[in-house]
Amino acid sequence: MVLLRQEIGDVLRHARRRQGRTLREVSSVARVSLGYLSEVERGQKEASSELLASICGALEVPLSRVLHEVSQRVAAAETPVGMRVPDTVPDDLASALEGDVALSAPGLVSAA
Amino acid sequence: MVLLRQEIGDVLRHARRRQGRTLREVSSVARVSLGYLSEVERGQKEASSELLASICGALEVPLSRVLHEVSQRVAAAETPVGMRVPDTVPDDLASALEGDVALSAPGLVSAA
Repeated sequence: MVLLRQEIGDVLRHARRRQGRTLREVSSVARVSLGYLSEVERGQKEASSELLASICGALEVPLSRVLHEVSQRVAAAETPVGMRVPDTVPDDLASALEGDVALSAPGLVSAA
Repeated sequence: MVLLRQEIGDVLRHARRRQGRTLREVSSVARVSLGYLSEVERGQKEASSELLASICGALEVPLSRVLHEVSQRVAAAETPVGMRVPDTVPDDLASALEGDVALSAPGLVSAA
């Protein structure tokens, strides 16, 4: 099962690291405890809506952008395994499988 | 401040009503109490990640779609009031204000 708090935590952590900022710095600006922020980033604690807004504010990332990234991550996790393109598939077949032509790709038809 | 739980609640309620289903029915399938689901829909309670997943499952709506809708609602709420088009603006000016030409629209320049 895809858990929202884990995806939110990952996105927040990535945003903080991209900015080269520490847990201590962001937690201070967001006025949350360092331990709380750390647990949220690791997906171990549900962030309340108010504190999530505060953390986004401290990161200067709109909540909507965080949620958009989270929705994309969740969508990827929701995709049935059989529909994913394995890492070992050659690039040209991978392109076909990822495109709209997936269902009519020769590779799929012959494999069916 | 935009609160995530309120937007999630709105999206879940709309999804349930579109399906013509009752709180009782969905709460039963999701295995949450009717009161809990009602509070979540009204934005009065934070849904845990597990129960949010369960509610989405009962509604047969992917969590990713709920989050995508939520991100769009939050984005709209984040838009500064001055950038929104009031209901009373004529259609032609409204179109200009909503487009990329907003900052050069005559209506805005003369009002500045």
